[in-house]
Amino acid sequence: MSRSSSSALEMEIFQYIDAHQSDFIKDLKEWVAVESDSVQPHLRKEVIRMMALAADRLAALGATVHLVNLGSHQLPDGQVLPLPSVILGELGKDPQNPTVCFYGHVDVQPAKKEDGWNSDPYTLTEIDGNLYGRGATDNKGPVLAWINAVETFRALKLAMPVNFKFVIEGMEEAGSLGLEKLLEEENQSFFSDVDYIVISDNLWLSNKKPALTYGSRGNACFFVEVECGSKDLHSGTFGGIIHEPLLDLIALLDSLVDSTGRIQIPGIYDSVAAVTEEERKLYELIEFDLEEHRINCGVKKFLYSTKEEILLHLWRYPSLSVHGIEGAFHEPGIKTVIPAKVIGKFSIRQVPHMDLSVVKKQVVEHLEGVFSKRNSPNKLKVSMPLGAKPWLADVNDLLYKAARRAIKTVFGEDPDFIRDGSTVPIARMFQSITQKSVMMLPIGAADDGEHSQNEKISRHNYIEGTKLFAAFFLEISKLHQTLHETSHRETIN
Amino acid sequence: MSRSSSSALEMEIFQYIDAHQSDFIKDLKEWVAVESDSVQPHLRKEVIRMMALAADRLAALGATVHLVNLGSHQLPDGQVLPLPSVILGELGKDPQNPTVCFYGHVDVQPAKKEDGWNSDPYTLTEIDGNLYGRGATDNKGPVLAWINAVETFRALKLAMPVNFKFVIEGMEEAGSLGLEKLLEEENQSFFSDVDYIVISDNLWLSNKKPALTYGSRGNACFFVEVECGSKDLHSGTFGGIIHEPLLDLIALLDSLVDSTGRIQIPGIYDSVAAVTEEERKLYELIEFDLEEHRINCGVKKFLYSTKEEILLHLWRYPSLSVHGIEGAFHEPGIKTVIPAKVIGKFSIRQVPHMDLSVVKKQVVEHLEGVFSKRNSPNKLKVSMPLGAKPWLADVNDLLYKAARRAIKTVFGEDPDFIRDGSTVPIARMFQSITQKSVMMLPIGAADDGEHSQNEKISRHNYIEGTKLFAAFFLEISKLHQTLHETSHRETIN
Repeated sequence: MSRSSSSALEMEIFQYIDAHQSDFIKDLKEWVAVESDSVQPHLRKEVIRMMALAADRLAALGATVHLVNLGSHQLPDGQVLPLPSVILGELGKDPQNPTVCFYGHVDVQPAKKEDGWNSDPYTLTEIDGNLYGRGATDNKGPVLAWINAVETFRALKLAMPVNFKFVIEGMEEAGSLGLEKLLEEENQSFFSDVDYIVISDNLWLSNKKPALTYGSRGNACFFVEVECGSKDLHSGTFGGIIHEPLLDLIALLDSLVDSTGRIQIPGIYDSVAAVTEEERKLYELIEFDLEEHRINCGVKKFLYSTKEEILLHLWRYPSLSVHGIEGAFHEPGIKTVIPAKVIGKFSIRQVPHMDLSVVKKQVVEHLEGVFSKRNSPNKLKVSMPLGAKPWLADVNDLLYKAARRAIKTVFGEDPDFIRDGSTVPIARMFQSITQKSVMMLPIGAADDGEHSQNEKISRHNYIEGTKLFAAFFLEISKLHQTLHETSHRETIN
Repeated sequence: MSRSSSSALEMEIFQYIDAHQSDFIKDLKEWVAVESDSVQPHLRKEVIRMMALAADRLAALGATVHLVNLGSHQLPDGQVLPLPSVILGELGKDPQNPTVCFYGHVDVQPAKKEDGWNSDPYTLTEIDGNLYGRGATDNKGPVLAWINAVETFRALKLAMPVNFKFVIEGMEEAGSLGLEKLLEEENQSFFSDVDYIVISDNLWLSNKKPALTYGSRGNACFFVEVECGSKDLHSGTFGGIIHEPLLDLIALLDSLVDSTGRIQIPGIYDSVAAVTEEERKLYELIEFDLEEHRINCGVKKFLYSTKEEILLHLWRYPSLSVHGIEGAFHEPGIKTVIPAKVIGKFSIRQVPHMDLSVVKKQVVEHLEGVFSKRNSPNKLKVSMPLGAKPWLADVNDLLYKAARRAIKTVFGEDPDFIRDGSTVPIARMFQSITQKSVMMLPIGAADDGEHSQNEKISRHNYIEGTKLFAAFFLEISKLHQTLHETSHRETIN
């Protein structure tokens, strides 16, 4: 690996990290051993135990740690559960330094050996250079990599290049309950002196090439309910004489997208931002193995044939997916029922500059139009129970420049500038509440299998990721101070 | 009630039945008390106990009773359960008499008080002239009414007007497992001297007016499977770049029926028999309260506005209903999944003279044609896991004449000649295996709520139904002997 540009300081830091691999892996093993699954209620106490462990780890760095109590929440079955506290941590207050806030989470998705894991999901197991375990890449590994990068400066008794803030939560896999409210409350206090926000809770686009993420699509979820009455009917006794709600619903759902994948809702593409020349160039440079991606997901063919078209349609054009139908027969076998009330579920991943309220209006008008042509006496109800906005950062921002340089230093190549076709509410939430620059700086590879069986992070990515964070501290410090001096000079002039 | 045509013999019989109402209701109470639910495995022993009770009851009539062992069956979960034996009973062998075989079942659908019953489902409870209890109308009440009609002749020491055969099963609510094979095996022996087969396992069309059932629609069930790969995909990561199987399936399902209820599969109506003048007259005479039927099922409006159109579309035109989708998201809430494999379920209720294999071919060709226009790389598989044929009897048959006369005697009016929009496999099975005349002679009213909460038979229907069966024995005996004498004379001439 080329490290032509590494300074002596960087060399010292990298050597320390290399020499302490086993310690860092031991840390991760300890964290993975905690079944901090925030989805299953009976494991909530483990999440709370995990938060305490993370708080201790930050305190050991020398950080001031606050565990902010978020109260409790009620499950659909009426059960009331305590919410794990959110950690707000602070380390360093040098006015010369930029303040970087790191967001991560230490809760995990459910995992059981029987689901198809080759090793116990809560025992970090190294096989062929990969560290397998639930949370290894999502998100305990990256959180520890950041902490260990800070630890390295402390251990080597180096001056901290940045002031650190930490937001560590334990409910990310269950929808980050209470976090948005906390961010709003802390916006004028905890966040007031934050310059940059870094999130490391996603993956590279490829297995080998590092990436920086600067945007994600939003998600507008829709329910389309069609109802003929209060009780399901028998298809022998009523088949042929009534307007079946499921037939209405199927016609409605069939009107949404054509077979080429183009959304048929009038006006839906009107506000989609045009692709700029600069953007198009970013897409050309991206390393993306179409064939590998196709094989990974198992489909025979994509809707488009070039890398650019695929990525554009995944990241910066809206898409519409139908997820299923509630209320209809869904089990194996046969049931000759005419369901009385069916709810179709679909969602539109929207992109800048689509407006959620406009999208909702377009969808409702379109569906009502299609429905009225059917002369059905059934009741139609269209709702948008969830609307998450897209997120887009400026790749020319200081934060991205610093990360790009650090990546070049550690990995010897420029990163892919990528977006996420999925919705990353956390990035959008940080950006819209704090109005700070937000960057997603992943260290996990595309094949890490977050949320899947046999989740892993490679030893390489974990350790080089730790170096990347350390290098990033130095770069953002330099760039920030240069900018600061420049603006200072400008102010004097 | 007009009984102008009742003979002295009939009067004697009817008086006996009226005088023994309490005994007959006591019998029904005893039978209803047995939780002979054939659906839930843990209650199988109760079904077997019920079969023994029914066998004892027939033996007490003087009938020869054989309990035919059908072996066992395996549940989807691997559990092996014994099948309840089928009762084959015989009473009387007078060569002057016609032999009438009665089919009934003594197993029931599941029922729990908590489901919304006003009384314990297994304690027959009389409220306002209605006898509430699971199996009261489906089918314990009618089976006992038949037995008690026979019992009346015995108690009064009257000559039996017909020879009786009985086929009583305990698996009807679970698909009559093993029955078809038994009928085939017994066709040359038990059924060889049977002249007529009577089934009393359905309901009148109205709450008040008796009915005779002469036909039922068939049912061809279809599975349409569309698959893009082996694992479900995330709509953020793949939405917009793949041909979603659910979108393919929705387009396929949307191509089946138009909004007026007309099936769009080319050729599907080609073999439907034309409506005759005689048939049309039957429809005109039928007592059917459209508005009551509409309110019962809860829809705002039917597809058609006249009684005749509604009944024709329910009974003698095919209909297509979509039941649901397996493999898609079906729970409450939101899951932004792109399901990898979805199976649409629909069925076509077919009518004479549609041929099942032709219907299957038409469906497959139509769906493959629609699918090919989508240029989807996904895998399509269309199958017909179940195909039940329609059943149609001749209303001019002796059996129907006799029943019609008996109804006129007991109820003072002509019956509705009705069909069943649902599939009655048992009628079709008896007819096609034995090649005998089959009639369905219901005694339950439209509002009896079979399979529902608060199932009932009215005291009136149960007792008058017993009289109806007794009167029917006399009528079929007379008509059969007249026919026999006629053909005898013809043979001599």
